[in-house]
Amino acid sequence: MSLRPTVDFLLYDWLGVQTLSERARFADHSRETFDAVLDTCERIAREKFAPFNRLVDTQEPQFDGEKVILPQATKDAWDAYAASGMLSAAQDHDVGGMQLPYTVEAAGNAFFAMASVSIGAGMLTVGNANLLMAHGSPLQREVFARNAFSGRFSGTMCLSEPQAGSSLSDVATRATPDGEGFEADPLGPRYRLRGNKMWISAGEHELTENIVHLVLAKIPGPDGKLPPGVKGISLFIVPKKLVDTQGRLTGVRNDVALAGLNHKCGWRGTTNTLLNFGEGRFPVQGEGLGAGLDGRGAGAIGYRVGEPGKGLSYMFHMMNEARIGVGMAATMLGMAGYHASLDYAKTRPQGRPMGPAGKDPTQPQVRIIEHADVKRMLLAQKAYCEGALALELYCARLVDEQRTGDAAAADDARLLLEVLTPIAKSWPSEWCLEANSLAIQIHGGYGYTRDFPVEQYWRDNRLNMIHEGTHGIQALDLLGRKVLMENGQGLQRLVARMQGTIARAMQRPELAAHAQALAQALQQVGAATQAAWATGQPTEALANAVPYMQAFGHTVLAWIWLDVALAALLAAPSPARQGRLAACRYFFHYELPKIGAWLQVVTQRDMTCAELAEDAF
Amino acid sequence: MSLRPTVDFLLYDWLGVQTLSERARFADHSRETFDAVLDTCERIAREKFAPFNRLVDTQEPQFDGEKVILPQATKDAWDAYAASGMLSAAQDHDVGGMQLPYTVEAAGNAFFAMASVSIGAGMLTVGNANLLMAHGSPLQREVFARNAFSGRFSGTMCLSEPQAGSSLSDVATRATPDGEGFEADPLGPRYRLRGNKMWISAGEHELTENIVHLVLAKIPGPDGKLPPGVKGISLFIVPKKLVDTQGRLTGVRNDVALAGLNHKCGWRGTTNTLLNFGEGRFPVQGEGLGAGLDGRGAGAIGYRVGEPGKGLSYMFHMMNEARIGVGMAATMLGMAGYHASLDYAKTRPQGRPMGPAGKDPTQPQVRIIEHADVKRMLLAQKAYCEGALALELYCARLVDEQRTGDAAAADDARLLLEVLTPIAKSWPSEWCLEANSLAIQIHGGYGYTRDFPVEQYWRDNRLNMIHEGTHGIQALDLLGRKVLMENGQGLQRLVARMQGTIARAMQRPELAAHAQALAQALQQVGAATQAAWATGQPTEALANAVPYMQAFGHTVLAWIWLDVALAALLAAPSPARQGRLAACRYFFHYELPKIGAWLQVVTQRDMTCAELAEDAF
Repeated sequence: MSLRPTVDFLLYDWLGVQTLSERARFADHSRETFDAVLDTCERIAREKFAPFNRLVDTQEPQFDGEKVILPQATKDAWDAYAASGMLSAAQDHDVGGMQLPYTVEAAGNAFFAMASVSIGAGMLTVGNANLLMAHGSPLQREVFARNAFSGRFSGTMCLSEPQAGSSLSDVATRATPDGEGFEADPLGPRYRLRGNKMWISAGEHELTENIVHLVLAKIPGPDGKLPPGVKGISLFIVPKKLVDTQGRLTGVRNDVALAGLNHKCGWRGTTNTLLNFGEGRFPVQGEGLGAGLDGRGAGAIGYRVGEPGKGLSYMFHMMNEARIGVGMAATMLGMAGYHASLDYAKTRPQGRPMGPAGKDPTQPQVRIIEHADVKRMLLAQKAYCEGALALELYCARLVDEQRTGDAAAADDARLLLEVLTPIAKSWPSEWCLEANSLAIQIHGGYGYTRDFPVEQYWRDNRLNMIHEGTHGIQALDLLGRKVLMENGQGLQRLVARMQGTIARAMQRPELAAHAQALAQALQQVGAATQAAWATGQPTEALANAVPYMQAFGHTVLAWIWLDVALAALLAAPSPARQGRLAACRYFFHYELPKIGAWLQVVTQRDMTCAELAEDAF
Repeated sequence: MSLRPTVDFLLYDWLGVQTLSERARFADHSRETFDAVLDTCERIAREKFAPFNRLVDTQEPQFDGEKVILPQATKDAWDAYAASGMLSAAQDHDVGGMQLPYTVEAAGNAFFAMASVSIGAGMLTVGNANLLMAHGSPLQREVFARNAFSGRFSGTMCLSEPQAGSSLSDVATRATPDGEGFEADPLGPRYRLRGNKMWISAGEHELTENIVHLVLAKIPGPDGKLPPGVKGISLFIVPKKLVDTQGRLTGVRNDVALAGLNHKCGWRGTTNTLLNFGEGRFPVQGEGLGAGLDGRGAGAIGYRVGEPGKGLSYMFHMMNEARIGVGMAATMLGMAGYHASLDYAKTRPQGRPMGPAGKDPTQPQVRIIEHADVKRMLLAQKAYCEGALALELYCARLVDEQRTGDAAAADDARLLLEVLTPIAKSWPSEWCLEANSLAIQIHGGYGYTRDFPVEQYWRDNRLNMIHEGTHGIQALDLLGRKVLMENGQGLQRLVARMQGTIARAMQRPELAAHAQALAQALQQVGAATQAAWATGQPTEALANAVPYMQAFGHTVLAWIWLDVALAALLAAPSPARQGRLAACRYFFHYELPKIGAWLQVVTQRDMTCAELAEDAF
């Protein structure tokens, strides 16, 4: 079974991505070039990723005291991915990129995530280099970003610290100007960094010639103290190995040391590290790299990106794509489990049908896909995962609109993305994880063994509710910021889109009841949003931000399914069309009604949890 | 933080277990002796189980070609457990037992499950030996059961086969009479067994002198064919090593061979095996063990228990306790995660409070238990796990009633157990697993690493929806059998108990609204039950058996919490009392409203899933 027909349907029949080639930026493209990219991704994922997914789980990264050891397959996968050009898919032709729409890039990357989510670390490298393309100096782009696009260097994002996981205002990594003339370094104002960074994915390995760390740190004020809050955060390029202005390795190791590998429940193909910056393990005292008695010259060399104090805003610039990327990873892990359990259900004989036909034990057993509850678990997975894929591609399409649409369309897309991104990140993390659990359940005891792939998908997927902003943080972002911002413009535009879908669906007898249900859900969500903020107290409004997000997410997915169903109705009758309409129906019958329970506590500003005394737990 | 106050409250203040000592069977007992048992269990669990829970996860069972190797800690834990007397806790004084109420035995075992669910395999051994006490011959009891109670032998239950996981009517293991005079063997009618058994927990190890397998197999008819269906299944004792009538090892190995160890996602302290019976690896041709040219004499020696064709009914006799045991294991894994995440939340500083107080980044961070969403995740865990513990103990108390109550009370308990057992097994398997996921979430990234215990609890717990009857099978049992049986008597008696609780709660202003909500839920469940069966078609009624079970389970838990809250109200104000009332309120506000969505598809006999064509997935 191939994912490709689903991707094709969503890209071309639903989102009409082929029409993007009418825009100047994508003028060299066509459905044929998009298809060629997808073909390549599908092939490399099948050949270089999927066969090694279990291997990277069982041979997790090891540190031998000098180097981090990864399976050869990981290196081969990286090389194949880099050779495909996907690292620079979105870049301009004149820097060697494909100038591909982000929607197609995201669709292409979906195949890799499904084949082996953790073997590749391309997403981080691309995010890192994209950030430098947007905010770095011309030489920083040339030296660091372009070598990342070619796959010669890889990249990380160093935000968290052991004492400040999600609380970035408490970042304590210190960046001090590196001697006199520090501002004159051609690679950017030169600092010395000291501090510890936790949860750094792909923070140490031998896959690439060099690793380019993008590090959030604070520059001390005249009193020597770090500025409090997030406004004091700056961004630095800290290469593992120092390079010259041509991007050549100088032979000098920067003072970035692996302090430990995190041993994870899943997602083991990617190293996850605690890194020490400037602890003195690899002291740097090269020519032109000033060192003073006051220790100012000790630390890891870092080149500031952009202006001081703007580090976090540069990072946030990349946040939508990073969060869509996590949502897509969660989605494709769910999809992998769905396909695996569908295959299993079609071949595994067990039990007999209900009713008289099943009473005769001399008859052979039937395949488990013939049991209603197995079908329920399969259709739930389909509704979760294909719905989530549609949502991620929809968001990706908005990213393209924000970049290449006219001013009004771009602004519309920007506002919609603000509101949809927390859902794109959180919803698949929760529900495609649930899909993975259903995939295990369909396999019975076999699903619980490591002889089948589904338990790994489930373990891998559990990360997605945590990294890149936890569930709780997404919920605060949604209800505390996104639905309020710019006088509720984002929410209003989303509602307008939903109402457009509802109006069209009302015309179709097959979908009219769903349209009605969505209209009602929309009303409930709107009322709950109002009620939550009725007293204007954040402590009351946000006490149930997660249930709010769950209801909001289910409403968004119902809308997505309704819109997808409208597109499906245009096609000639086929099993695929029937399946899409059934998944839509499943979502409206089995899932959307769940929002009532979630919204009730939001609407009532229920403080049962928030007010419970600590010693009562 | 100790579990003990919760257990004490439930046993004594809520269930009044101390009054059982008024019954003849428990006359030697008192609250003091019960406490002494709980003290012992708590201590052994703390000393011999908890410290090795991670060890048994990382050092999973290995087969060296001769023996299965387990950590020494597993052997020490087994020995300590056996020495505690818990293996024969429920047995008569005159066979060396404690004559302990099952409720207290279950409570004592809860401490072990919480400390390390997989290191101990006591539950299976006890279930095995209890079955023999009920259905074996006097010598079978003496030789096999009593040596199990002392910990000298351990036991297994061999039901599943590779081609017939949950479908026991397809059991293909063949038991043929072992030559002339086979019926005269003092250990029981002697057969030769040939077949393969899958998913056998503790099927091979060196923890005990011998392993007593209880094996379901079929005796061929005169035509040489195995009788179809479950009525042809008989039960056999198949010792790993042959014994004499004194229970001494004869030195002859029986023909039971380890065919493979299953490598699981969790629950790794217990071996899980594929066993081959009678494949000829250890051929047995001892004196008096006839062997014929027709191969009749080849196979593993097995002694029939009771009558031919009654094997499954003997097994089912033990089913309630086995399922309560699984529910308790799921519950205690959830509880372990709850306690771990509560400890973590109380000590981990991160972030700042909402509102003006949190705006000042120069103030120190607060502990995460001060965040509303963390409290929500803690209270959800408390409501799930302490509620589930109450349910399991309630069911255990019904087992005691069934055994020692007067005829009417015993029958009442029997009927209630029929209806409640599917919930006692399935509900904690689903919701205490969700609790484990919340415990990970509270830990953030740390929870996803193997440096903290919560990811293991989550992995371990995933098994519970699968073994001892999957979720789907529990649901069919509930809606297809239990709510209908004996003219709906079981359901009616459960409703009567719930209405008793509702009536009492109506008198308490703090609980009246909850009582009202439960009454309404009860009505909804009743209506859904009727609607499901309105057409009398099992295919329609049972198409949504799992959502039905989910709604039924949530209603049962709401009732349990309301009843527990009534007991809590009797206590003097204290943090613990406040916590119980808050958990009850949480359940009514956040959880019970979920039943609407589940029941909707049941009520409408929604066939969206059941009728979808296979090629449409």
